[in-house]
Amino acid sequence: MNGVQEQSSAGGATSVTTPSDREIVTERVFDAPRERVYAAYTDPELIPQWWGPRKTTTTVDVMDVRPGGAWRFVCANPDGSEDGFRGTYREISAPERVVQTFEWEGMPGHVIVETATFEDLGGQTRVTTTSLFHTTEERDGMLASGMEGGLSESHERLDELLAK
Amino acid sequence: MNGVQEQSSAGGATSVTTPSDREIVTERVFDAPRERVYAAYTDPELIPQWWGPRKTTTTVDVMDVRPGGAWRFVCANPDGSEDGFRGTYREISAPERVVQTFEWEGMPGHVIVETATFEDLGGQTRVTTTSLFHTTEERDGMLASGMEGGLSESHERLDELLAK
Repeated sequence: MNGVQEQSSAGGATSVTTPSDREIVTERVFDAPRERVYAAYTDPELIPQWWGPRKTTTTVDVMDVRPGGAWRFVCANPDGSEDGFRGTYREISAPERVVQTFEWEGMPGHVIVETATFEDLGGQTRVTTTSLFHTTEERDGMLASGMEGGLSESHERLDELLAK
Repeated sequence: MNGVQEQSSAGGATSVTTPSDREIVTERVFDAPRERVYAAYTDPELIPQWWGPRKTTTTVDVMDVRPGGAWRFVCANPDGSEDGFRGTYREISAPERVVQTFEWEGMPGHVIVETATFEDLGGQTRVTTTSLFHTTEERDGMLASGMEGGLSESHERLDELLAK
């Protein structure tokens, strides 16, 4: 499964591509300076305001933004269930680049390496994320999970936060 | 770096091969029935008796042997320092197969998927482990760390434990 899919949204379009058998690359331009966009990804006060679908409530349980530090977010669903997500920060290079692992607690031990880069476009910012999976099967499982829709919704929420 | 290296030891030889760019495969035959060898890998009482170099003292901090369960071992070094290792069990199929993640706490967020298979040779047991890395660089870093010598020493210690 390789290809490109564009998701339109209020403030822009999120592109999702699969340039190799084990990667998912997303790209999105936000209408805000790089420092503000970088802060939205790395400030525990801002994460709950945009991270995850609108119908869920995201809580930051742990967010120790330094190399080797842990992070854990909990999404409370409308039906009362919860989804936990966790990982470890591997590299923090403000305001340009963050490398971290990502693991959904519903599938423990399936660990993704996510690299986010923040590119200064002069008032706007391009965010590119590369998710590297151990296997193609795990990558395809993520694509099949509906991550593209969820991501697009998160990006819309981030547009709204940045517009404030 | 691809190749085969044989490490001789008291009870047998551990082969270490790199069949792909992201894998390390080790193979060793132990002179004991499969159930006993499988127990040595999955019983928290037995791990400290063979896991790690002789000069270190290994303590089992956590060992929740079920899918999704965590494990953490701490190796105390002669100089007083400690090395922590941790992961998550992904699959437990006694006495044939265990899949788990492996992470050295000195390099947090670099997560390996290890698959161990236990093959019944009729009184003897062949243990094959496949370590899958996210990247070739991480794989080569493990090879450069001296893991082969440490592994061979652990296998010698396991020989001695199984001979009791």
